[in-house]
Amino acid sequence: MQLGRGTNDLRMESITENVKEFLFETAEEVYKTLRSSSGTDFSKQVGMGANGTPTSRIDEIAERVVIEKVKRESVPLNILSEEAEFIDNGADMTLVLDPVDGTFNALLGTPFYSISMAVGESCLSDVKYGLVRNLTDGDAYYAEKGKGAFLNGERIRTAGFDPEKSLFIVYIGKLAHPRSFEIAAKARRARSFGAASLEMCYVASGQADLYYVDCDAMLRIIDIAAGALIVREAGGEVLDLEGRRLEMDFDISSRSNFMVIGDERVLEVLG
Amino acid sequence: MQLGRGTNDLRMESITENVKEFLFETAEEVYKTLRSSSGTDFSKQVGMGANGTPTSRIDEIAERVVIEKVKRESVPLNILSEEAEFIDNGADMTLVLDPVDGTFNALLGTPFYSISMAVGESCLSDVKYGLVRNLTDGDAYYAEKGKGAFLNGERIRTAGFDPEKSLFIVYIGKLAHPRSFEIAAKARRARSFGAASLEMCYVASGQADLYYVDCDAMLRIIDIAAGALIVREAGGEVLDLEGRRLEMDFDISSRSNFMVIGDERVLEVLG
Repeated sequence: MQLGRGTNDLRMESITENVKEFLFETAEEVYKTLRSSSGTDFSKQVGMGANGTPTSRIDEIAERVVIEKVKRESVPLNILSEEAEFIDNGADMTLVLDPVDGTFNALLGTPFYSISMAVGESCLSDVKYGLVRNLTDGDAYYAEKGKGAFLNGERIRTAGFDPEKSLFIVYIGKLAHPRSFEIAAKARRARSFGAASLEMCYVASGQADLYYVDCDAMLRIIDIAAGALIVREAGGEVLDLEGRRLEMDFDISSRSNFMVIGDERVLEVLG
Repeated sequence: MQLGRGTNDLRMESITENVKEFLFETAEEVYKTLRSSSGTDFSKQVGMGANGTPTSRIDEIAERVVIEKVKRESVPLNILSEEAEFIDNGADMTLVLDPVDGTFNALLGTPFYSISMAVGESCLSDVKYGLVRNLTDGDAYYAEKGKGAFLNGERIRTAGFDPEKSLFIVYIGKLAHPRSFEIAAKARRARSFGAASLEMCYVASGQADLYYVDCDAMLRIIDIAAGALIVREAGGEVLDLEGRRLEMDFDISSRSNFMVIGDERVLEVLG
């Protein structure tokens, strides 16, 4: 693709038309790279590699694919990412990238991890494009600001809340605040999958009513940026734990707890 | 396949060689049937069908595939299953079948549900063959008594327990006993995927250290039978919540809470 042809094109107007194509192509390259590295067992082998820092190998491989594509095609985007932190290409817009969200699942071979990519200027509320792609089954959740949210090209919307059929996704474990367990106990069904960007998208597509994260480690802007746009474009909202609309700067050190809701009636149940 | 050729073959000896082939063929037929019904979006469409009892449609379709195959090929197995309850074919061995484990995930389009098939005489401890196949990515967990456990043909073993990297899968939600949340809070990472047979297999393959189920509804023999053999053949154990080796009769009304462990050292952490 020809997204940018030189430094003269480092203006927002020159890229808006092609950002979608860039995001989908990039996700596809990462998906194929991880698969072809050693077939579908890639993640399992990395997990068993025990080469000192096996945890980051899959992230590094995926991130490199994205950074090299941006460089090779002179894509007019800065990059905010896990390993590289911030690559300033002098562009107006920044790609907020989590190359592999759910790394621990990937390392164990648990089929639930994703790439998360958002494009915006400086903060969560000005994100214009978001793509979250499941790197195991290839499902792609995508949104453009003002144009709706889509799963594999089909429009998705959050579900109306029915307490009898409620399904909450809740971050649990040692680092979770005890209140997380109280929240989980209010749901007819509760889940915890271990990949935040996909879990946000599950609320967007009506697969869950709530995604709740209240933990010591908190989550980073790179985990949240794409999912937040997708949820909002699907009719849901991303709130901080005081119930305010979540806002975060594009800063690798930005971390927050939050909750994603599909229908505000779920808030009545949370108490 | 020619597994049985008539009532004279309804003896255990006549089928042992071919049971593995029967189980894999059957899982493949179910997998293909669900996929071809309307492509990869089958489950989503069923979920949105709202035809009165959409919950059971996918189970019915899958169960019918198995029952018709057994009948068509005169397979010398009785069938214990969700909808049909017990089909007595006058055989020595019984197929313990959960045609779709994780139905709610399937209906929502969440890629985490499986078929679970076990073959044995009358109870959990005499199960000789077990197959759990993920109906979304096709991963197949299989075990034969005394011959080990396998994921897609490769030997699997449970993981040694390291508290620093612990991952527990815990049944959570409104029906869970409060102790479940205490257990989840002891793990570095905790998950809840919503398909018991697969979650048991994740302990077998070392993807998790513990799978803990303590809930009002409890789980049925059809959810547990195959996974229990796979876990035990992988070096783990399935215990009741008092720590005794789990035993259950082949009876559709048999229900139990239980925990699956990969390494007995995890018990020290549970307290």
